[in-house]
Amino acid sequence: MPKYVYFFGGGKADGDGSMRNLLGGKGANLAEMAGHKNLKLPVPPGFTITTEVCTYYYDHGRKYPKELEKQVVTAMKGVEKVIGKKFGDTKNPLLVSVRSGARSSMPGMMETVLNVGLTTKTIPALIAKTNNERFVYDAYRRLIMMYSDVVMEKGAGIEPKDDEGIRKQLERIMDAKKKERGVSLDTELTSQDLKDLAEAFKIKVKEVLGTDFPDDPYKQVWGGISAVFASWNGKRAIAYRKIEGIPDAWGTAVNVQAMVFGNMGNTSATGVAFSRNPGNGDPRFYGEYLVNAQGEDVVAGTRTPAPINEAATSEHNKNEVTLETFMPKPYKELFAIQKRLEKHYRDMQDIEFTIEDGKLWMLQCRNGKRNGPAAVRMALDMVKEKLITKEEAVLRVTPAQLDELLHPIIDPNAEKTAVILAKGLPAGPGGASGVVVFSSEDAIAADAEGKKVILVREETNPEDVEGMRAAQAILTARGGMTSHAALVARGWGKCCIVGAAAISVDLNSKSMKIGDRIFKEGDWITLNGTKGNVYEGKLAMVDATENSLLFEFLKVCDGVKVLKVRTNADTPADARKAKTFGAEGIGLFRTEHMFYGENSEKPLFALRKMIASSTTEERKKALDELFPFFKEALKGTLEAMDGYPVTVRLLDPPLHEFIPRDVAAQKDIADSIGISIEEFQKRADKLHETNPMMGHRGVRLGITYPEITQMQVRAILEVSAELINAGKKVQPEIMIPVTCSVNELKDQKAIIDAVYKEVVEKTGVKKLQYSLGTMIEIPRAALLADQMAEVADFFSFGTNDLTQMSFGFSRDDVGAFMGDYLNKKILADDPFQTLDTEGVGQLIAYAVELGRDVKPAMKIGICGEHGGDAKSVEFCHSVGMTYTSCSPFRVPIARLAAAQAAVKEKNAAGAAKSKKSAPAKKKAKKAKKK
Amino acid sequence: MPKYVYFFGGGKADGDGSMRNLLGGKGANLAEMAGHKNLKLPVPPGFTITTEVCTYYYDHGRKYPKELEKQVVTAMKGVEKVIGKKFGDTKNPLLVSVRSGARSSMPGMMETVLNVGLTTKTIPALIAKTNNERFVYDAYRRLIMMYSDVVMEKGAGIEPKDDEGIRKQLERIMDAKKKERGVSLDTELTSQDLKDLAEAFKIKVKEVLGTDFPDDPYKQVWGGISAVFASWNGKRAIAYRKIEGIPDAWGTAVNVQAMVFGNMGNTSATGVAFSRNPGNGDPRFYGEYLVNAQGEDVVAGTRTPAPINEAATSEHNKNEVTLETFMPKPYKELFAIQKRLEKHYRDMQDIEFTIEDGKLWMLQCRNGKRNGPAAVRMALDMVKEKLITKEEAVLRVTPAQLDELLHPIIDPNAEKTAVILAKGLPAGPGGASGVVVFSSEDAIAADAEGKKVILVREETNPEDVEGMRAAQAILTARGGMTSHAALVARGWGKCCIVGAAAISVDLNSKSMKIGDRIFKEGDWITLNGTKGNVYEGKLAMVDATENSLLFEFLKVCDGVKVLKVRTNADTPADARKAKTFGAEGIGLFRTEHMFYGENSEKPLFALRKMIASSTTEERKKALDELFPFFKEALKGTLEAMDGYPVTVRLLDPPLHEFIPRDVAAQKDIADSIGISIEEFQKRADKLHETNPMMGHRGVRLGITYPEITQMQVRAILEVSAELINAGKKVQPEIMIPVTCSVNELKDQKAIIDAVYKEVVEKTGVKKLQYSLGTMIEIPRAALLADQMAEVADFFSFGTNDLTQMSFGFSRDDVGAFMGDYLNKKILADDPFQTLDTEGVGQLIAYAVELGRDVKPAMKIGICGEHGGDAKSVEFCHSVGMTYTSCSPFRVPIARLAAAQAAVKEKNAAGAAKSKKSAPAKKKAKKAKKK
Repeated sequence: MPKYVYFFGGGKADGDGSMRNLLGGKGANLAEMAGHKNLKLPVPPGFTITTEVCTYYYDHGRKYPKELEKQVVTAMKGVEKVIGKKFGDTKNPLLVSVRSGARSSMPGMMETVLNVGLTTKTIPALIAKTNNERFVYDAYRRLIMMYSDVVMEKGAGIEPKDDEGIRKQLERIMDAKKKERGVSLDTELTSQDLKDLAEAFKIKVKEVLGTDFPDDPYKQVWGGISAVFASWNGKRAIAYRKIEGIPDAWGTAVNVQAMVFGNMGNTSATGVAFSRNPGNGDPRFYGEYLVNAQGEDVVAGTRTPAPINEAATSEHNKNEVTLETFMPKPYKELFAIQKRLEKHYRDMQDIEFTIEDGKLWMLQCRNGKRNGPAAVRMALDMVKEKLITKEEAVLRVTPAQLDELLHPIIDPNAEKTAVILAKGLPAGPGGASGVVVFSSEDAIAADAEGKKVILVREETNPEDVEGMRAAQAILTARGGMTSHAALVARGWGKCCIVGAAAISVDLNSKSMKIGDRIFKEGDWITLNGTKGNVYEGKLAMVDATENSLLFEFLKVCDGVKVLKVRTNADTPADARKAKTFGAEGIGLFRTEHMFYGENSEKPLFALRKMIASSTTEERKKALDELFPFFKEALKGTLEAMDGYPVTVRLLDPPLHEFIPRDVAAQKDIADSIGISIEEFQKRADKLHETNPMMGHRGVRLGITYPEITQMQVRAILEVSAELINAGKKVQPEIMIPVTCSVNELKDQKAIIDAVYKEVVEKTGVKKLQYSLGTMIEIPRAALLADQMAEVADFFSFGTNDLTQMSFGFSRDDVGAFMGDYLNKKILADDPFQTLDTEGVGQLIAYAVELGRDVKPAMKIGICGEHGGDAKSVEFCHSVGMTYTSCSPFRVPIARLAAAQAAVKEKNAAGAAKSKKSAPAKKKAKKAKKK
Repeated sequence: MPKYVYFFGGGKADGDGSMRNLLGGKGANLAEMAGHKNLKLPVPPGFTITTEVCTYYYDHGRKYPKELEKQVVTAMKGVEKVIGKKFGDTKNPLLVSVRSGARSSMPGMMETVLNVGLTTKTIPALIAKTNNERFVYDAYRRLIMMYSDVVMEKGAGIEPKDDEGIRKQLERIMDAKKKERGVSLDTELTSQDLKDLAEAFKIKVKEVLGTDFPDDPYKQVWGGISAVFASWNGKRAIAYRKIEGIPDAWGTAVNVQAMVFGNMGNTSATGVAFSRNPGNGDPRFYGEYLVNAQGEDVVAGTRTPAPINEAATSEHNKNEVTLETFMPKPYKELFAIQKRLEKHYRDMQDIEFTIEDGKLWMLQCRNGKRNGPAAVRMALDMVKEKLITKEEAVLRVTPAQLDELLHPIIDPNAEKTAVILAKGLPAGPGGASGVVVFSSEDAIAADAEGKKVILVREETNPEDVEGMRAAQAILTARGGMTSHAALVARGWGKCCIVGAAAISVDLNSKSMKIGDRIFKEGDWITLNGTKGNVYEGKLAMVDATENSLLFEFLKVCDGVKVLKVRTNADTPADARKAKTFGAEGIGLFRTEHMFYGENSEKPLFALRKMIASSTTEERKKALDELFPFFKEALKGTLEAMDGYPVTVRLLDPPLHEFIPRDVAAQKDIADSIGISIEEFQKRADKLHETNPMMGHRGVRLGITYPEITQMQVRAILEVSAELINAGKKVQPEIMIPVTCSVNELKDQKAIIDAVYKEVVEKTGVKKLQYSLGTMIEIPRAALLADQMAEVADFFSFGTNDLTQMSFGFSRDDVGAFMGDYLNKKILADDPFQTLDTEGVGQLIAYAVELGRDVKPAMKIGICGEHGGDAKSVEFCHSVGMTYTSCSPFRVPIARLAAAQAAVKEKNAAGAAKSKKSAPAKKKAKKAKKK
């Protein structure tokens, strides 16, 4: 009989921590905590319904396997035995929670029902047992609110009228009751108030949803289980999975667990803690708790929690009493447990606990999410503490986390004099400026228009996820460091401030009030997510690269990685910046850079003259004018790289791109050549192309106009010679773009060789060496890479063009259908963002193989957008490239990704080896036995 | 010691006919004729200097291997011995010819020197020996003319002043002499005249070229040899090789051979003959001769030759006496020899002969060139005569020759009443109209402008080759069926009339006179190359597909081929035409055809409405309007194909292509949708793409607008159902274009399956079957063809797009550089003309393999321009495709190419087998010996 239910509690467990895929993260960890010989923690007993049941459920029209019911009942009996209570019992009734638990955590995305098992029959018994009528009726009204919302409405797929869910309607009844009673806090309501509320709730539920609130404990528990499974395919969960890249097929497990109560009065509490500070990596135990509360109160951020200890105390909560002071015994036990857990899991732990009437219960533990600075600090600390190896440390920081350290922060000088509007909790580091918006939809719309926005909310909820993603930063008026907004922002490494209580948001007028000031939608503010400060206006930003831990961590990466990391840089400034980030050369210097932006006027004019030339003579004249600009543009960059290799790509874009639209500008050029404006326009029209991306560009220009190649190569070699003669080190590499045949390379090589001879003669330089390579960006070049390698000293994959040609997607036009392609899951990723390893990757791997067949030590790299994308860098490593090249700011990411790729490869090789040797070991064992 | 010189003559030879690569075509055949046991023909003795010497000569700065001189002298002694004369002897001197002979014949492209060995010392001896002073001085003046031109000027690389070569200058001296003597023919000059001329020539040669005409026989012979080698790299030869695709590296051999003289008076003659008529395939012996002439007189076309027999007699030469009548004995011998040669070589022979004083000498034999009708007739006849097998017959007709039979001829009705301007020899079949031009340059220029031209020349020479290629047809005033113009035109299957003596061309005024009428450049004429008639004006053409031999031959092809041949057809008329040409189905029916050309107004209007739709509702409305047109367009074609498979490709081109430029048309559409013209233009602008070839087209439209796929599929299936219900047979195949991912296919398949169900329900049809396939035209689709094959029932390679994407060449823009790419030999062929088997072919072969791995019996074909290109068809066969598809008129070519591919493959397999078994045979022999 297939096993669908796994029991845990009382010092043992059916499962263990390795069964994440089957039991979900939470279920596996509960089993591990409860059952592992080193732990055996005080976990409330319970059982996990496996993810296979979820898959079965969806594969079979929302039906369960027939064996499930019996297994659930058996497991429930086991729970009863361990805890000494009985489910639905009229003497000592057991209450349970029903929670989701997927393989990968999806905070707040899925449903939970607490206090399941409270019925009109069990209530008196629980009152008698706890001697706390108020607590029982509070639990009951909570059950009704939660259950009617999660199970009876959402779980049943009922769309609320006027967008007013049952929960809101019940909350309104409760608010009315508070008003009636003249109180403002839930805790101020009496036992009778709560009893009355429960009755009123049940009537409303029946009225709104058409069914009675179930009074049978097993009916409740099955309702809870179904609601959890249903929530796996809820809109929010699907949206979250899409963003996080979690497969729909994984499914979720369901954990049914004995309830313990943090809300049984002032000897009870509940909290969330981390074995190290997830916001900055401080190695001290860190956390928040609420007295007399259930876990949902902490996560929802409706009450501002207190710090568990001195280390968790901040400006914001310094007046609250710590758990350490308030409940020293359970705190001590908790402290010891978190130490043990961290040692056991060898990573920072995120812990949920409840203290019921003085007794500590562990509800959950898992590897804690952390932001970038924290991840880096923890990784380095843990290496020093000998908790993990350097290889492991490299895997402990995601590229996205590292990216956070590269995010801008507010210019300290600007910040000094800036006016603080409000203070909140520093939930996501870095700085951000933007115009305020007050809804997720507005954030998405404004982002689509290219505006930088800051999403301001009273508090966020899962419905806000997409708006949060679109925003530069998030600011909430309520909630703590473990509130929804804080969790989500941390996961994304996004600047975020929560619990900025001075702010009150008015959704109707789309404005917020801070003190007596009003900020309307579209007003600029600036956040310092590291300090929790909100400033007026738009402050200057600087980059955060002065973080010394960053560089320490990157050195660890360098010690592990194999792939070299170069940069794409076209200016001395970029080259220098990239070098400080650790670039080991330039993989792509675009000669055409000099025609864009600052100081481009004169070279652009000369280029346009060249383009408008119709005879070789005219063209040569224009090229002579261009020549000094080419030399000038190259000189600074070659100098800045100080002997590191610099790959100079010859002119690449279609010439028509450079023709001025402006008639006055056209006339200037026409005059300078000595032709009429009509003649100029005629020539320009002739250059127009139907599909310029596949037109007269790259090496094709060099073939039809050899003098264009000559001029560029002369510039590269002359500058190099001059620098060498001045005692400098240079390592120029000449790269031919858009090739599709080795004959193009042969043709261009002949030109280059001739120019080389002339330059050596003219400058008298000794030791001028250069290498000649080609972009592999046309599918045919990849297919015939063995031929290309006969002439080329190196390859550089131009994955932008290679992706365009392999897919037949014009990057400029893909917008018309890429949205549908991603929505309909025709493609998993936008191939211009993440390299399509399946298709384009085949061509690359094949070309690397062919190239190395001819030249085994061939230098092979990648340049273009993908060179700094972590997944793509891993691929580059896996096919054995020599280097990747990316924009200066992506260099650290690429170094990390390269290191991770190396470690993963090593680990995989190790795993394969140990797998392979398993039968061998068995044999050895058998032999021994004999 | 390496052997550089191969002797032949006197009934033996060092080489044989198989040594074509080493001895050249002529040398190998001379050896075969002289030495083969079945032949031992009367060949003047001589020797061949191998092609290796040519290669050596160019590899070593125009120097010969040191062993050569000795071998030449030894061979010359052998010649002397056989013929009983001595080279340079003062008693019985031997004269020799020095001729080129490459692997592949290059008629008229390379140099020849005759009468080598005539010096002031040998002249008196030859006069004494022949007792014919006139003949000797005529030979001498010919030697000087030829030698000074070929060896001393061209061979030495001297560029003549004012474009006036030495030959012209000598001709002027001769013309002056004729004038002085009051005669018009060379033959009317006396012995003394010729003697005087020789002296005058020698003075002129020294004056113009600065060196004496050599008076040493060996100096003469070495000069001749060098000149032949030099001519291999002459401008004309290089141009010819480029057109014919002959590699430069092959080199030429040199044949030095004892002279025999057809110009020793009226008992001597020279001629060219064919064992069958090369112009129409008539199996009777055919040829021309001239009494008292040397071979060059026949080829140059300066005198109109006489027919060798009754069968060679035409309207044009019926008054001349035949060789059979004039010299019955040598004719009889010649007749027997040609029979023997044809049997020996198993192909029609092209023979050069000379009769010296009544004795027949065979100068050359080779497989004869022939035009298309002749090739087809010969192939069929030879099968009937059991001379060759059907497989061999298939290889005897080139695709280009077959193409001639598909060329237009003049509409017989139009021709009946047309005025014949002139008559000439029918040198190239078919009809052609064009405007007259009078120089090669003018023909090239006019062709480049898209004009159809007929090149009219007094007579053509090798300098005219490129102009002849550019022209629709060639018309000359002089020359016979074996003149330069006739030979070249026949090789190309081009319409050609030679020897139309009524015409006189005036190059200065760019006009020609026929009778008293003047035709200027740009005037239209029409040629009937099959009859030799020149007509005034532009006559209507019809196609020549009524040739019953063509269909008989194609049936032979069908018996041999494996590859099926389909057609690309979008109309019932095209479908019917293709069926008569043997198409076995439609490989590409373009739904968009209905939007072009006749009757496209209404569907185009509906399409434009659809394109301008901005909501699904608007779009569906427009699609409803389009629906009946789709059904209508499909119905006739499906009916015409009568159960043969018809592959319907769903809408392919970018929508922007269909938007009218015309504002009135725009307004009509805007009105019909109920939007303003501004709104219409806004929507149209939004559709504009930077690179439309890689934009929103093909399946991408079907993904973003599923309703477009729905409508098309509904049309296909409903029409099919209706035809089935009416008792017709249909086999529809739905083809999705521009796919890059299997998910696209899955998405579209779901739509199609749903529509299928609806149609079956609606029409109640039984047995409606369809298959679903995809174009493979995007590189990624080829790379992931195994995935594509999971969903697709068939593949069709769209090699146009696949070539575009693989090369990154936009077909619309490639003009800017393709010329340079071909000239600089970066690419051997335009890949849009001939499939790039090396690059694109790799993708195709790979995709076929992947597809068949998944579905071993998968139907795989090709559609697009390459489907009718013979080389490409061979490739399709070689990778194991199921079918090729091409335009109706290319279907016969494809059938032939498919058959040839099958035979070649079989032959190659046979060759490999026999090679393999050679050692085995040896072993067997050895075993026997023992």
